[in-house]
Amino acid sequence: MVTVKLNQETYFIEEKSQLSGVKRVANMVRADLGLIFGRQPIWQSLDAITTDSEKTAIFAATIGQSAYLDDLLNRKMITASEIENKREVYQFQVIQDPWPSVKRALIIVGSDKRGTIYGLFHLSELLGVSPFVNWSDLKPKPETEVTLTDKDNFVSREPSVKYRGFFINDEWPAFGNWAKIHFGGANAACYAQLFEVLLRLKGNYLWPAMWKDNFSLDGPGLKSAALADELGVVMSTSHHEPCMRSGEEYTLVRGKNSPYGDAWDFQTNRDGIIRFWKDGLKRNAKFENVITLGMRGERDTAIMKNATMAENIALLKDVLKVQNELIKQEVNSKLSEVARQIVMFNEVESFFYGDDTTPGLIASKELDGVTIMYSDNNLGYMRTLPSKAIQNHRGGFGMYYHMDMHGGPTSFEWIGSTSVPRIWDQMSTAYDYGVQEIWIANVGDLATNELSLSYFLDMAYDMDHYGSKYPNNTEIYIQNWLKQQFGNHFTSNDLSLIQKVIDDYMLLLERRKHEVMGSDTYHPVHFGESDTVLSKCQEIMQICQDLRKRCPAAALTGFVGLVYYPAVATANLMQTWIYAGKNQFYAQQNRVIANDYGNKVRLGIQRDHEIIADYHQIGEHKFDGFGLSEHFGFRQWSANNNQYPLVYDVTPANLPRMIVSSVTASDYSLGEAWTNQNLVITDFMRPDVTKAYLDIACGSRDSIAYEIINQTPWLHFSRYFGEVQKQVTIEITFDRKNAPLVGESSFQVKSGEAVVDVKLPFRNGLFDYPSQTFIETNDYLAIPATAYVSAIATDEAKFVVLEPYGKFGSGVKVFPQTIDFMAIKERPELNYHFAIEQVGQYELTLHFAPTLPVSQDNHAYIQVGLNENSLQLVDTVLDSNQPFYNSPQWAIEGTNDEKQCQIKVNCRAGLNLLRYIQISPNLILERITLVRLGSQLPQSYLGPTASYKLL
Amino acid sequence: MVTVKLNQETYFIEEKSQLSGVKRVANMVRADLGLIFGRQPIWQSLDAITTDSEKTAIFAATIGQSAYLDDLLNRKMITASEIENKREVYQFQVIQDPWPSVKRALIIVGSDKRGTIYGLFHLSELLGVSPFVNWSDLKPKPETEVTLTDKDNFVSREPSVKYRGFFINDEWPAFGNWAKIHFGGANAACYAQLFEVLLRLKGNYLWPAMWKDNFSLDGPGLKSAALADELGVVMSTSHHEPCMRSGEEYTLVRGKNSPYGDAWDFQTNRDGIIRFWKDGLKRNAKFENVITLGMRGERDTAIMKNATMAENIALLKDVLKVQNELIKQEVNSKLSEVARQIVMFNEVESFFYGDDTTPGLIASKELDGVTIMYSDNNLGYMRTLPSKAIQNHRGGFGMYYHMDMHGGPTSFEWIGSTSVPRIWDQMSTAYDYGVQEIWIANVGDLATNELSLSYFLDMAYDMDHYGSKYPNNTEIYIQNWLKQQFGNHFTSNDLSLIQKVIDDYMLLLERRKHEVMGSDTYHPVHFGESDTVLSKCQEIMQICQDLRKRCPAAALTGFVGLVYYPAVATANLMQTWIYAGKNQFYAQQNRVIANDYGNKVRLGIQRDHEIIADYHQIGEHKFDGFGLSEHFGFRQWSANNNQYPLVYDVTPANLPRMIVSSVTASDYSLGEAWTNQNLVITDFMRPDVTKAYLDIACGSRDSIAYEIINQTPWLHFSRYFGEVQKQVTIEITFDRKNAPLVGESSFQVKSGEAVVDVKLPFRNGLFDYPSQTFIETNDYLAIPATAYVSAIATDEAKFVVLEPYGKFGSGVKVFPQTIDFMAIKERPELNYHFAIEQVGQYELTLHFAPTLPVSQDNHAYIQVGLNENSLQLVDTVLDSNQPFYNSPQWAIEGTNDEKQCQIKVNCRAGLNLLRYIQISPNLILERITLVRLGSQLPQSYLGPTASYKLL
Repeated sequence: MVTVKLNQETYFIEEKSQLSGVKRVANMVRADLGLIFGRQPIWQSLDAITTDSEKTAIFAATIGQSAYLDDLLNRKMITASEIENKREVYQFQVIQDPWPSVKRALIIVGSDKRGTIYGLFHLSELLGVSPFVNWSDLKPKPETEVTLTDKDNFVSREPSVKYRGFFINDEWPAFGNWAKIHFGGANAACYAQLFEVLLRLKGNYLWPAMWKDNFSLDGPGLKSAALADELGVVMSTSHHEPCMRSGEEYTLVRGKNSPYGDAWDFQTNRDGIIRFWKDGLKRNAKFENVITLGMRGERDTAIMKNATMAENIALLKDVLKVQNELIKQEVNSKLSEVARQIVMFNEVESFFYGDDTTPGLIASKELDGVTIMYSDNNLGYMRTLPSKAIQNHRGGFGMYYHMDMHGGPTSFEWIGSTSVPRIWDQMSTAYDYGVQEIWIANVGDLATNELSLSYFLDMAYDMDHYGSKYPNNTEIYIQNWLKQQFGNHFTSNDLSLIQKVIDDYMLLLERRKHEVMGSDTYHPVHFGESDTVLSKCQEIMQICQDLRKRCPAAALTGFVGLVYYPAVATANLMQTWIYAGKNQFYAQQNRVIANDYGNKVRLGIQRDHEIIADYHQIGEHKFDGFGLSEHFGFRQWSANNNQYPLVYDVTPANLPRMIVSSVTASDYSLGEAWTNQNLVITDFMRPDVTKAYLDIACGSRDSIAYEIINQTPWLHFSRYFGEVQKQVTIEITFDRKNAPLVGESSFQVKSGEAVVDVKLPFRNGLFDYPSQTFIETNDYLAIPATAYVSAIATDEAKFVVLEPYGKFGSGVKVFPQTIDFMAIKERPELNYHFAIEQVGQYELTLHFAPTLPVSQDNHAYIQVGLNENSLQLVDTVLDSNQPFYNSPQWAIEGTNDEKQCQIKVNCRAGLNLLRYIQISPNLILERITLVRLGSQLPQSYLGPTASYKLL
Repeated sequence: MVTVKLNQETYFIEEKSQLSGVKRVANMVRADLGLIFGRQPIWQSLDAITTDSEKTAIFAATIGQSAYLDDLLNRKMITASEIENKREVYQFQVIQDPWPSVKRALIIVGSDKRGTIYGLFHLSELLGVSPFVNWSDLKPKPETEVTLTDKDNFVSREPSVKYRGFFINDEWPAFGNWAKIHFGGANAACYAQLFEVLLRLKGNYLWPAMWKDNFSLDGPGLKSAALADELGVVMSTSHHEPCMRSGEEYTLVRGKNSPYGDAWDFQTNRDGIIRFWKDGLKRNAKFENVITLGMRGERDTAIMKNATMAENIALLKDVLKVQNELIKQEVNSKLSEVARQIVMFNEVESFFYGDDTTPGLIASKELDGVTIMYSDNNLGYMRTLPSKAIQNHRGGFGMYYHMDMHGGPTSFEWIGSTSVPRIWDQMSTAYDYGVQEIWIANVGDLATNELSLSYFLDMAYDMDHYGSKYPNNTEIYIQNWLKQQFGNHFTSNDLSLIQKVIDDYMLLLERRKHEVMGSDTYHPVHFGESDTVLSKCQEIMQICQDLRKRCPAAALTGFVGLVYYPAVATANLMQTWIYAGKNQFYAQQNRVIANDYGNKVRLGIQRDHEIIADYHQIGEHKFDGFGLSEHFGFRQWSANNNQYPLVYDVTPANLPRMIVSSVTASDYSLGEAWTNQNLVITDFMRPDVTKAYLDIACGSRDSIAYEIINQTPWLHFSRYFGEVQKQVTIEITFDRKNAPLVGESSFQVKSGEAVVDVKLPFRNGLFDYPSQTFIETNDYLAIPATAYVSAIATDEAKFVVLEPYGKFGSGVKVFPQTIDFMAIKERPELNYHFAIEQVGQYELTLHFAPTLPVSQDNHAYIQVGLNENSLQLVDTVLDSNQPFYNSPQWAIEGTNDEKQCQIKVNCRAGLNLLRYIQISPNLILERITLVRLGSQLPQSYLGPTASYKLL
């Protein structure tokens, strides 16, 4: 067994021929080791080493680039057969006596430059250094010595996806200010930080910021591009910036006397545009790039307004032809050797497919060897994916994936809100459809998207472990990720708490993004959904405060940046909106307590500012700037015209006023004879409910005295009388043991002359139905999709439960993900049992994740059947004639994070069997509700909680 | 010429036989004279007088009741032939040497007791004493001496309506508290005040308060009833209290062992109820009464729930028969000599008419000789009126008229809101239909209804001067009334100001009652209607403050009670709601100025309390209690659940935000490229408009700097640049002389990167249409009903312009008011001219006063014709199958004080002729609007201002 010890004495072997990029990375790893052992390893040339058995040498080299390595291989000190001729692979090995003067060494061999770099960072990772050590200022745990043995030897895999990276997008105000404060701009020093994060996460690909910044000019000059190339970072430009020139560059060089002309128009300024592209290609040809092809309008707009499909396609074909020609001239005459991409973002997708009369770009020979980049719906759900017909396209497919958006249906640029289960589901689907060449995530400012990006890049790196064969891997992933970041600093119990906080705040965001949260999102009282969310927010904030108190200084900046800030800021925002909902709702009823909620809203807005200020100052202003994006009350896709919650101020009534209601219902009574003295509380219709809650609120200047008059022996009240200045909540306990089977109880609430008659219909459970049957209460049923009584699989496919997942916490989806069952007779099926009281027509609502149809024919079918009735085929796409993307359905479902599909069904009295079949791919059913026609389910965002289910 | 001088020496001749009521009134007049001359005239018996030529004697007597008078008549010192055998008539005459010891005397002779009383008060009035001298504490002007001559001799008329009076109703909290504070309750001392006001206003009839009070018990005992009888005040009970017993009396005497039984039910407790009635009749038989017949349910509810028409009518017939029988037994065996009434309030009206299968009470012999009391729609508009078929009904007809309501569509119990033009129109209509026996006005607490009640009683007294032959008499009436109250205290200029204030605040109320005013009544910006109302409110308040400063102490209490309080409190309430509308409207747009409006709302609510407190303390708490009724934000007909305006609090945006809009439009622009940079101001499409107004508002924490970029030579701006912290209004002047005939101008408003492009389409007037033609602008036309180009009269009838009148200031109505033109070929007609640009379909809306059909067949027809098209017959009743009263139409029209009737018409390009014909009686057209189909008129309460009209 070989043993090497790493400590203050460890040194790095320097070789003159070492690639400068590898050396740069080695220096980063040296710094990491310095943080651990208190002293950075020194560089030593092999010649200068005198025998010293106690010191361990670290030697990193790339096959074909190192005489020392060749020597070792020649001497069979090591072999490299496992990595030779592979892409981005490394071998990590401890050996004895590699050279006479070196007794013990750690040898890191890369199959190529990036292989060596990943191998170097493997050491840091092994020693407990977070990839975000510098980005988030997360100090590793100091050690005196670490011992490595044969057991630590490791040969890495070839990455699943060829180009894996991120896009710094919409960089103002957040990233832009951060860069300005810390580096004076988005220059090479700034990009050095990003490259490091990218490489530590085993990415290799980057689209630079381009809203107002120019990567190839701001280095200064080409400094950033040269650095990227040195470090093995493959650069490109964003989806609408062809030929390695950023969009803003044209603004800088255009003009009446400019050689580039003065119009971003390939028709009227063909020569100028060609010259502009040619010079860009020439300038960046010496670096490793993926070159963007195609053309859009200026500043990410449609290329031609009011043109036909045929005109657009013809123009684009011409553009592509010219661009390929330019690449041959300026980059490489063997075009097939040049990595190129075209991105089907926005309207470009339709040109790719064409229409009935005009063939799309899809079959154009200009795209031969070009990677076709698909994209998501702006919110992390796939748009179309490669059809079987084009699976063999040379150049393969890529994915441009949004974790940040400046556009519809809503912008989200503040705090990362893309959950890892969503990424797993949709990116594994994409991969299964052949999207394996390029994965790029738009991460906005990157800050607060670290977890999602880590997961995205880890998936891209290793689909053998993160692919569709491994559902529900995200919880363990987060657990490991947190161990990586904070394992040295928090107890395992606290790590669990952090994970809970992350799960919880990401669930809040999975339900509704910050920007589109509103006072009317969650209903203030129905089904208690606001209170449920509110207590979740408060729990998040409380846990975070507690954790922060326990957080060691070495991790504080990282904890605030990666956990505390995004979680607390999210919880505070959600809480503020819920308070606003309650303020406005109670104000309409003239409850004086509305004003207390109004003050909570004001405090919430103030707290939002404080939370951001805290984030900006932590770690000596480490993150200063990153919190600057607007995030309250978007009233269109952009922040323009956004609005903080309006606070409604109530003037109390002059005359004493009691307002009585169920805590979870909108109707209320003042107990006034002229109007309404009646109130019905239906909670006890559900056989497992024994508590209900009554609000007695004051609506007047003067407090009110109330009295509860009850003569029902099985009803008990937490209070029977009192004085109410604002509001009191009375707990009503229903003693089921002493109550009849079915009936209606009642009591009265009196205050002065006001009398409210409260009726409580109730029902005790004695149902002769099979186990797992859901029981209708108050004319509705709510059934989680995972609560099926039986699942029928086929030889080919089966339903898989995804959990945690989506808006409602879980869902069901058929795997393999690529099968369309339309032409297949055998189909997996789920069965549900529910019982209703009376025969009748019901509205059945299927609640899905807001996925899109993945095929261009624009259908997403399911089948539903009730009892012995034949199955009903239903298209969940409302209007197949218009592209789904940018349709009203796209906007509504994306905003609500929910696709709803309504079907009328006839139910019989008693037990019913509901059959559910998924026909089209990429549909995830989350829950099922049934409401008796004619009944009105109280308005809510999450719907009723799951119905009573027999054990 | 006979001359008598009134001064401190004047005395009253006392006669033993003088009626005690007359003597009481004489004492009131003595007190009046005391206020004027500084000393009350003494009583002297004729025997005790020694010759004294300088002293004037006042002698008041009733024919048949005075030996002194008989002696004078015998000696032909006076003759009384003009008044003999007349009802309530007096002769007022100065004579010389009536008796040896009396050289000069004023002789007041009454044809009966009330005649003498009215004659006595005639003296007070002649001396400038207001009828409200004591009620409102309005001191007359002190004089040393007043000379009366033959010219002052006067013989009064016989009143037009036999019973004229008011009903103190819904006495709590206002009147009830006032009575308690000042008299310890609604006892005889309290009623003495009301009787005095009634008699000074030449009324003779009263329904006492009965919500919680009992007139015949609380005197104490019969003291109030006895006093009424003594003073010649005819008493009754309200519409639903038969046989001289108040409703609450039954509550006091009912019980298990009570002789009256324990159920207000003529079927199950027939004997008890009969006994209850019998005892009431017996008790009050000795007084002059009008006895109410019929029966309703307890506390003014329907008599039988869920009973058929036939059952109800049968029951009521039985009731009437029994009641008549009891009256014969207890009051007068000659039933025809007993004044009796039955009131058709609420559902009773339908029993009166019956239905297809059941004849109504209308022809029942039990009603022979009984006055049939009709009633209004609760808001001062007639319901059905006597048809021709029953005009000869013995007992005649009466009217129960509401100037106060506790019921639907809204309660109004605070400040009097019934305008005198409305009273004239509707009561003169009723009179013309034969309603001439009883007029009673529900005046609520009386306070603040003084002017309306004065007018009502003056009409009832003298329909030869206030009848339908004299339209538009109300302005001169108010002028005289104000002279009567304040003539001694204010200059004539100030009196005009007072009249203006009264006209203005009554117009506010004519448009919308206090209780149903809301933040959404007037649109905050459209057509500038809120600003127009707002400046009216501010003008009212300013004038009232100024007048109050100039008001002499002797009139201050009266001025506050009759003018200042109702006007200022009304203006403040209306203003507060308009501020609330602006607060909420601007808050939605995130204008920071919304918060200023919010504070104005808060101040308005506080000011409301202060205004009432001031009213309550003035004149040593003279009116204390009268301001207590709720009056803000009724959300159902009653005050329960009413609500002060909600104030919306805006949090300014973080980033600089400019908000640009036309001052009178809802749409606005932030000048932001992603969203909307355009704004259109259409004001200059109207050829007489040369000014338009632009709001530049700040929506952000930081102020904004703006700049106006204008290159149009005929546009001028009041400011071209500036800094805006809240809001600035820019005046745009359009220099028509230098502008082309038609076109579109434009300018820009810039702030930072924001640019708003403002377009101003315009049109100069060069129209080749006849004079008085209205010109369409922006797809609509608004034409006042009085702006006809020609009016066609018939031999029988013609249109009359009513002005001031109604919601829009004027209207047109056909007179005589009783003609139904359905069967008449010759019809009066009005013609209007208007011009439109393009041929097209328009929605024509006729805006009427919210009158009801007066005949039971429930139609209200008009005819409309356009150009040569045939006339279209339109029923303004939306659903003739349900009774109009209590229908949705009744509620909406009553609340909005407007009946709208929509008709689609085809207009031709150019000049159009609109013909309007009123078919059914009691319809008052106020204005006409036309809107091009497909165009949307901005939402508003008053509609657009009148369109451009050619001179």
